[in-house]
Amino acid sequence: MKKDLQQQLQHIIDYKTKPLGALGRLEEIALQIGLIQQTTKPVVKQPHIVVFAGDHGIAKTGLVNAYPQEVTAQMVLNFANGGAAINVFCRQNQLTLKVVDAGVNYDFSSSPINVIDAKIGYGTKNYLTESAMTIAEAGQAIEKGRSIVRQLAADGCNCIGFGEMGIGNTSSATLIMSAITGLPVVEFTGRGAGLNDDQLQQKINTLQQVYDKHALGSLDQQPIDLLARVGGFEIAMMTGAYLEAVHMNMIVLVDGFIATAAMLIANEIYRGIKPPSPAPGWSSLIAHCIFAHTSHEAGHEKILRHLGVTPLLHLSMRLGEGTGAALAMPMIHAAVNFLNEMASFESAGVSTQQAEG
Amino acid sequence: MKKDLQQQLQHIIDYKTKPLGALGRLEEIALQIGLIQQTTKPVVKQPHIVVFAGDHGIAKTGLVNAYPQEVTAQMVLNFANGGAAINVFCRQNQLTLKVVDAGVNYDFSSSPINVIDAKIGYGTKNYLTESAMTIAEAGQAIEKGRSIVRQLAADGCNCIGFGEMGIGNTSSATLIMSAITGLPVVEFTGRGAGLNDDQLQQKINTLQQVYDKHALGSLDQQPIDLLARVGGFEIAMMTGAYLEAVHMNMIVLVDGFIATAAMLIANEIYRGIKPPSPAPGWSSLIAHCIFAHTSHEAGHEKILRHLGVTPLLHLSMRLGEGTGAALAMPMIHAAVNFLNEMASFESAGVSTQQAEG
Repeated sequence: MKKDLQQQLQHIIDYKTKPLGALGRLEEIALQIGLIQQTTKPVVKQPHIVVFAGDHGIAKTGLVNAYPQEVTAQMVLNFANGGAAINVFCRQNQLTLKVVDAGVNYDFSSSPINVIDAKIGYGTKNYLTESAMTIAEAGQAIEKGRSIVRQLAADGCNCIGFGEMGIGNTSSATLIMSAITGLPVVEFTGRGAGLNDDQLQQKINTLQQVYDKHALGSLDQQPIDLLARVGGFEIAMMTGAYLEAVHMNMIVLVDGFIATAAMLIANEIYRGIKPPSPAPGWSSLIAHCIFAHTSHEAGHEKILRHLGVTPLLHLSMRLGEGTGAALAMPMIHAAVNFLNEMASFESAGVSTQQAEG
Repeated sequence: MKKDLQQQLQHIIDYKTKPLGALGRLEEIALQIGLIQQTTKPVVKQPHIVVFAGDHGIAKTGLVNAYPQEVTAQMVLNFANGGAAINVFCRQNQLTLKVVDAGVNYDFSSSPINVIDAKIGYGTKNYLTESAMTIAEAGQAIEKGRSIVRQLAADGCNCIGFGEMGIGNTSSATLIMSAITGLPVVEFTGRGAGLNDDQLQQKINTLQQVYDKHALGSLDQQPIDLLARVGGFEIAMMTGAYLEAVHMNMIVLVDGFIATAAMLIANEIYRGIKPPSPAPGWSSLIAHCIFAHTSHEAGHEKILRHLGVTPLLHLSMRLGEGTGAALAMPMIHAAVNFLNEMASFESAGVSTQQAEG
């Protein structure tokens, strides 16, 4: 069936009133979404951005971060009040925003705000000296992520982008990418929210220490063990969210640097469990995902090149929060809309290439 | 005043709740639009896409084009019926689409369709043997383009992207770019709507002949003379439209290859006339414009590099019609919206970088 559908979709795309291939990347996205939904008439329903927030023990040391740890909680309150960039872009593009407390070092229960409580703990432990979390906590975070997405799907959402907030979390992302690709940490270490040259060098040295301490170079590490050692609660929860979203055949947008690290872990788990998904034979979780944008965080372009994927947008942004995914959503709509709404050469009475003249 | 406003805008952008510069290109666009509108609170009003259509004498020879000339008229009817890509993207992004008959080789008066009649003639003459149009016709087209935009501005529109339709018009665009930059025609010659290798070589040879016949290498040529020799009615009209839109301090989006050629001519005229525009001292018409996307047409990336500009989108599209401009419009809204709606560090109570911790 898949091959037939792929041919059908390609035929529809090729006979729209435009030169062959003239809609470029949008044609690839239309084909991909048709295959995800197993139809020639895909629809985008109740698109969401889900932002997972969590704190990192390492951030208390100041060795890797430009902003103090409390900014994580302050930004969650900013999300709840509608004042952050992701709020603006979600409003503009009619996306529903959900903010999840995966493990912020702050008690939001005192402030009656619209944040989903999925707290695993008050921030992770400092992975310079011990594991960031237990294996049990990592598993719990993954399961919470799955259940949050399962609920959204049950409510009718079929398109989702994941964002994050967590001071210090580019460091977790760097370590995860380095462990999974086997490339040195320096390859993926960037300035995060704004380190200067000396601070960047300090971050590289610190992450190298962490890498060595946890023996991240050993290849027999399970993805959940990697999460426990150097992950974050928001990253672990996002990992579960990816797994469920792909399992449910949703359109999945990958945001920036940290979101890509969580997707890498999810991809490793997906390879291991080979889920009995109704998905039509994606070779990997990566192949199912749509990459929203290239972050200006130095390591992101490198990991994207390593994966052989090209995101939709290149706007030199490096904000996280799911902002790249939110801004890419109009391109998803454009791909689905041209497939559903454009006239064909035949229906519009337009001559095809070199057929005449 | 301009410098003060620029500093004010930059300060507002820098104190939004995000790391410095983290919104990348959107920050540049927000600053540019603030300066265009001379305010810290810019607004986008009644955004439009205006598509100019015209036919080219050269297209009757089949030496440079993959599709027959009648496709221009067929596509104009497709626009009028709402079935083309530009219709889909305008509907999606709430853009008003205007289609202008600048000089199609077809009489639309018999079909009561919604096309603005600004016809200069039934297609240009074949520039292999004579000038495409007279100087008077070029001037008339420019004036029509100006008056169409003047009317839209009077009706409340302050944001506009220009598109085109015209079988054979990548050839005019190539010749214009070559004449203005002094670079060989081969640099800018691409496959248009879909030439194969042999046809591409034939197009290059043909355009070189045209270049030599009209002595396009001589530097004393006036832009209007260049338009008359190798332009098109839709290109000339778009040239006038750019001039008026910049004169009226509108937000101007430049679409793809042909739209960039028209902008180049407009820029040459702008330099010559130094209009008493209320615009705050843009060094050139180019500096006022926002480049929407990089076309997959081979020459577009080269001319953009030559101009030192980087468009917002890179989607490997090569369709014209203003489709790149229509798809970039959400980025314009995003830039304006974050400037107007995001909380500042102070208003949100978020700690600034390295202030604590």
